[in-house]
Amino acid sequence: MRVVLATVLVLLFPALSWAAEMSDATAECLECHVSIAPGMVAAWQNSRHARTSPGEALEKTELEKRVSAKTIPDELRQNTVGCAECHTLNPGKHSDTFEHNGYQVHIVVTPEDCATCHPLEVKQYGQNLMSHAYGNLQNNPVYQELAKAINGVQFFDGGQIDIKPPSPETSADSCLSCHGTKVEVKGFDARETEMGEMEFPVLSGWPNMGVGRINPDGSRGSCAACHTWHRFAIEMARKPHTCSQCHKGPDVPIYKIYQVSKHGNIYSSVGKQWNFEEVPWAVGKDFTAPTCATCHVSLIVTEEGDVVAERTHQMNNRLPWRMFGLIYGHAHPKFPDTTVIRNKVGLPLPTDLSGEPASEYLIDNAEQQKRRKTLQQVCLACHTPQWVDGHWARFENTIKVSNEMTETATQLIQKAWDGGAAKGLAQNDSMFNEGIEKKWMEQWLFFANSTRMSSAMMGTDYGVFDNGRWYMAKNIQEISDWLKMLLSVSGETSRDIKSDNK
Amino acid sequence: MRVVLATVLVLLFPALSWAAEMSDATAECLECHVSIAPGMVAAWQNSRHARTSPGEALEKTELEKRVSAKTIPDELRQNTVGCAECHTLNPGKHSDTFEHNGYQVHIVVTPEDCATCHPLEVKQYGQNLMSHAYGNLQNNPVYQELAKAINGVQFFDGGQIDIKPPSPETSADSCLSCHGTKVEVKGFDARETEMGEMEFPVLSGWPNMGVGRINPDGSRGSCAACHTWHRFAIEMARKPHTCSQCHKGPDVPIYKIYQVSKHGNIYSSVGKQWNFEEVPWAVGKDFTAPTCATCHVSLIVTEEGDVVAERTHQMNNRLPWRMFGLIYGHAHPKFPDTTVIRNKVGLPLPTDLSGEPASEYLIDNAEQQKRRKTLQQVCLACHTPQWVDGHWARFENTIKVSNEMTETATQLIQKAWDGGAAKGLAQNDSMFNEGIEKKWMEQWLFFANSTRMSSAMMGTDYGVFDNGRWYMAKNIQEISDWLKMLLSVSGETSRDIKSDNK
Amino acid sequence: MRVVLATVLVLLFPALSWAAEMSDATAECLECHVSIAPGMVAAWQNSRHARTSPGEALEKTELEKRVSAKTIPDELRQNTVGCAECHTLNPGKHSDTFEHNGYQVHIVVTPEDCATCHPLEVKQYGQNLMSHAYGNLQNNPVYQELAKAINGVQFFDGGQIDIKPPSPETSADSCLSCHGTKVEVKGFDARETEMGEMEFPVLSGWPNMGVGRINPDGSRGSCAACHTWHRFAIEMARKPHTCSQCHKGPDVPIYKIYQVSKHGNIYSSVGKQWNFEEVPWAVGKDFTAPTCATCHVSLIVTEEGDVVAERTHQMNNRLPWRMFGLIYGHAHPKFPDTTVIRNKVGLPLPTDLSGEPASEYLIDNAEQQKRRKTLQQVCLACHTPQWVDGHWARFENTIKVSNEMTETATQLIQKAWDGGAAKGLAQNDSMFNEGIEKKWMEQWLFFANSTRMSSAMMGTDYGVFDNGRWYMAKNIQEISDWLKMLLSVSGETSRDIKSDNK
Repeated sequence: MRVVLATVLVLLFPALSWAAEMSDATAECLECHVSIAPGMVAAWQNSRHARTSPGEALEKTELEKRVSAKTIPDELRQNTVGCAECHTLNPGKHSDTFEHNGYQVHIVVTPEDCATCHPLEVKQYGQNLMSHAYGNLQNNPVYQELAKAINGVQFFDGGQIDIKPPSPETSADSCLSCHGTKVEVKGFDARETEMGEMEFPVLSGWPNMGVGRINPDGSRGSCAACHTWHRFAIEMARKPHTCSQCHKGPDVPIYKIYQVSKHGNIYSSVGKQWNFEEVPWAVGKDFTAPTCATCHVSLIVTEEGDVVAERTHQMNNRLPWRMFGLIYGHAHPKFPDTTVIRNKVGLPLPTDLSGEPASEYLIDNAEQQKRRKTLQQVCLACHTPQWVDGHWARFENTIKVSNEMTETATQLIQKAWDGGAAKGLAQNDSMFNEGIEKKWMEQWLFFANSTRMSSAMMGTDYGVFDNGRWYMAKNIQEISDWLKMLLSVSGETSRDIKSDNK
Repeated sequence: MRVVLATVLVLLFPALSWAAEMSDATAECLECHVSIAPGMVAAWQNSRHARTSPGEALEKTELEKRVSAKTIPDELRQNTVGCAECHTLNPGKHSDTFEHNGYQVHIVVTPEDCATCHPLEVKQYGQNLMSHAYGNLQNNPVYQELAKAINGVQFFDGGQIDIKPPSPETSADSCLSCHGTKVEVKGFDARETEMGEMEFPVLSGWPNMGVGRINPDGSRGSCAACHTWHRFAIEMARKPHTCSQCHKGPDVPIYKIYQVSKHGNIYSSVGKQWNFEEVPWAVGKDFTAPTCATCHVSLIVTEEGDVVAERTHQMNNRLPWRMFGLIYGHAHPKFPDTTVIRNKVGLPLPTDLSGEPASEYLIDNAEQQKRRKTLQQVCLACHTPQWVDGHWARFENTIKVSNEMTETATQLIQKAWDGGAAKGLAQNDSMFNEGIEKKWMEQWLFFANSTRMSSAMMGTDYGVFDNGRWYMAKNIQEISDWLKMLLSVSGETSRDIKSDNK
Repeated sequence: MRVVLATVLVLLFPALSWAAEMSDATAECLECHVSIAPGMVAAWQNSRHARTSPGEALEKTELEKRVSAKTIPDELRQNTVGCAECHTLNPGKHSDTFEHNGYQVHIVVTPEDCATCHPLEVKQYGQNLMSHAYGNLQNNPVYQELAKAINGVQFFDGGQIDIKPPSPETSADSCLSCHGTKVEVKGFDARETEMGEMEFPVLSGWPNMGVGRINPDGSRGSCAACHTWHRFAIEMARKPHTCSQCHKGPDVPIYKIYQVSKHGNIYSSVGKQWNFEEVPWAVGKDFTAPTCATCHVSLIVTEEGDVVAERTHQMNNRLPWRMFGLIYGHAHPKFPDTTVIRNKVGLPLPTDLSGEPASEYLIDNAEQQKRRKTLQQVCLACHTPQWVDGHWARFENTIKVSNEMTETATQLIQKAWDGGAAKGLAQNDSMFNEGIEKKWMEQWLFFANSTRMSSAMMGTDYGVFDNGRWYMAKNIQEISDWLKMLLSVSGETSRDIKSDNK
């Protein structure tokens, strides 16, 4: 049967009989590795990298191309893209390069390596907030206070609750799991293997596939965050499960919202009939409802081949608003490095506590309109202009309203700080470490964000009862009550316990 | 290639060569629309509507029929059901009808339009609570207070927290997204299009696919809520993802419960092997575990063709109890318009605050037993009578117990109202706007409901740790503590802040 | 029709004509039952049991075997495994055996019955904590207090809140749904059936498929908890949806964590291409990422047939740590019956309230290391040693840190007990019934557990914002504030309400 099938295939598609082969170097890698970590090798064997050479990839039409390089180094053109092709690239740049059976191998394949064939994607990604996710968190003192308040270890010290900063293991296991760690070579270590003693670099912050990982070659990011190693299937990057790894918690419940949206419903019900492999990706033909990638990343065409949306790994060029992770929703930052932002009182935040934007660091109305139109082109592939306008009017109303509710909660926490019920910046204390402050944080970090995202993506209940408007409304009342109670106990009877709260 | 394929298909299935064709009018629509919103057109092209004419649909056997009309107007019998067939139907009844390239087109296709071929389904649906979801919310003053307390904007006004009613955009984006908006023509607007300037009606409350939408022809509901436009695949309506759009939040976590039930487990594990297209739907042959539609809607037969359950779009004729959205679980209302209900103290609620049912508006024991038996017939298709009885005994015990827990919480909130810790109806204030009231609401709106539904559908943990009994028990203790604290702070020190709470 | 189908099948696949056939007894069962509960019969017809005889099953190679019996009773060797084979086995041992159309039938098929062909699995399962899930809950007084505090009915009694113990229906519908009920014969009952009046045993605690069910033959457990009746497909047991039935709530959110892990992402995206039926299960060939079963249960081999991990139904021989359900994470208990454990103060708990382990009842470091290595063999099938070590270092750091956070919360609740803000064991009261105690419970039962599991399985946000570190940190501050407030209201004004809290 297989022979018959093969004959038929060769007759139909003679090109297949000339398929590219792996390099000798990769074949040498596989000799051992096929039995050391067979699942890793199998993933690669299922990949397009294992079936196609960069030379073949360059021959596709402009719209069908999966590589963006104009030229590819001669030594990489003929063979498929295997172990050796990526793990021995640019050896001089990688501090994690080590001698391994006669090859100069590095462990961490980076965007700089991928840029050999995919330079445009890497360049665009450099403009994506995600590529700066490590620094934007680690080099922003406000966020460092936030991270400490979440990940630090609280303990009793002489009757008071104090907090130890999180260990590197804890940070790597929490925030930096998505934001990316800093991967550094901490020395070299000899290990007994099936092939005798071998020496390997010892890496800190490893393993990690975070979107803003700082790599041993100095580059930022990890393509494998979305393009899961070692298959790197576009099918996976286009499916919403990939995004769910970092986008499903109460701070950013995008995946959950998608799941219960009409779009997600269509995907769950009939998505198995779609073609997730095709490039370009034709609306109506290859898929009949969007996934995350459709609206935010992919090159989308009509069945006739007209471009609906250009591919982008910058993503924010389709995004007029930044909806989550900050106190207020606001126009998108101009630059992916957000540590440069200063609000009116000098904090590295894109708005004041009252919601006033730090406008010089944010895109202006014209740029917002341009991005809005770009994203709406995707909507218009299935919906009428009136439909799209109606949807966006609701969404942008929700940004406004959710900001107003955050402002009310902020006025309450300001009363707490002013009235001595909690200590904030004016009292030289963290804004994030006390009980009532954490309630205030949930107002924006969870509830307002969830409401905005639900509105953006039509997940309804994530804007109502599931961490949405219900919680925005309830939380304001609870903060108000809590404040009254706290003020009440600042009196005599509770003096001894109150001191617990640093 | 297409020609070859067509030839092969004709040779294999000669019947296909007689397939119905689209009307000239629809062909004319597609001339432009295929490139305007290609995804919309593609969805329809994948539909049964695009492959079958109503005339053919009428020829099926009674059990196999997908149309319930006895006769269909001559002009609609021969062609497939395309754009023109639905969007130019009943032009005189639609206030959103407009002249469009020589046709009288309307935007919003309504149940009245669908009733041309599917009259029984539309009639049954009119008896379904869902078809009255707009009015039951918007015309019930108690629910209007609730909606305002959730969706209104809270703000500081002279040191006090006040609340603005929600804007139409907010309402459309939250409650009415599922309940349905009122879609009205607000005028006509000229818009520049690829085909020159054209005039379109301007609709308020649009877009919307809510189950109780008030349509421009005066009808109620949207078939597309479950029968996703423009494919209208029975496959989608039968899959649980469709129901999840409105039934997954903490107020009605049915989809989540289903997912972790044995039924949902079987669906997730092996459901891809099932036949979701067949009418009638044969238990054991087409599917081996129920989805939402199996128990609540579909025509179910045995492999031998014996009817297990008649198709119903009324749904509540299989439901003895109403479990969610109200303070207590109770016998189902007699009529889909619940605004007529009055409890003992004259409120439009099916029970008193103490749980006593407004019995004259609710079905009696005999009708409950009839509905119980109807639903149990579906259970008995896979389970023994002892199994089914055991399950129902637990479920109905849970209704009773969860109501008792709600009663205890209600006694606490009554103490709060009586003791001055909060203001309720007796104080001419909303029952839903203060912190402690919102805790009381969660007792029934979230926790008791979740527990009952979990019990009904065997989602176990949604009745224990996941918003179930754990939260019912914890919430009563928290309300009790909160009440003590509130009463304590009604004293001197907090007078100024307390006034914040309106 | 059947004859035609059979003829066609025989012509196409002559090998099938030698397939085992059902026994006469089973054929007799089916005569009636095919129309009584057709879905049940259809499930079995799709099963391997309906296609293979134990005799055939014995002929497979050692690695391919699905039965572990060395010999099988003659009368069971030739026919497929149908109704009669299981439901008439060991009639003397089953107190639920009854005379049914000339057969001695029992309702509840138990592990003892399954052990006829699968003795090793049953023996291993007897060492699994799950098999003791009923007794470990019901015979541990600490857990009985916990269960009462969750499932009991709270009610007002003379102005005070009291609590009634849960009814058997409530217990069966909540904790025991997963832990298993005690199924006992409560008499016999005559019922009118389509075949005339018949007598059946009346069972308490039925239906139930809990993992630790106490059966009418005295055995423990239900194989059908994971091997869903009556198809018993290994495909289902290997898919994560099965585990989700009992492992998804906030107390044990394993399924949710898996879903958003890279492993779960790969399963959701491309798992439909995998082979879930093959025995043994070859990494890289049959699947490319683990499901729950891969790491915890299944026999895993490489494509070359080398064993990566032996099959185990004991499961804990791959588990060095016990992470959930207890106050602290700790080394795994030595024995599946945990009621024998006593901590330093004599409570049946594996640690003191301060976290000190009851070491003599727990496995030692050497056994932990052995189990760690066993589980890591599975990791190493796809990952490098440095990757695996890095992952485990983070995970075990998280156990330590989450325990420290629990200790801090425990010091706070101890202050509450000491200060009179709540009553604990020293005051002869439950540790679980008051508001502040329930907050303390959530610290370990929900938040610390979620954080540990997220760390173990790389679900990131379940260790941060989704019931993870964020909640551990926030909860400590809330408990601290709550304690202050409670101490404050123990004064004059609230005396009357305070007495509500028993």
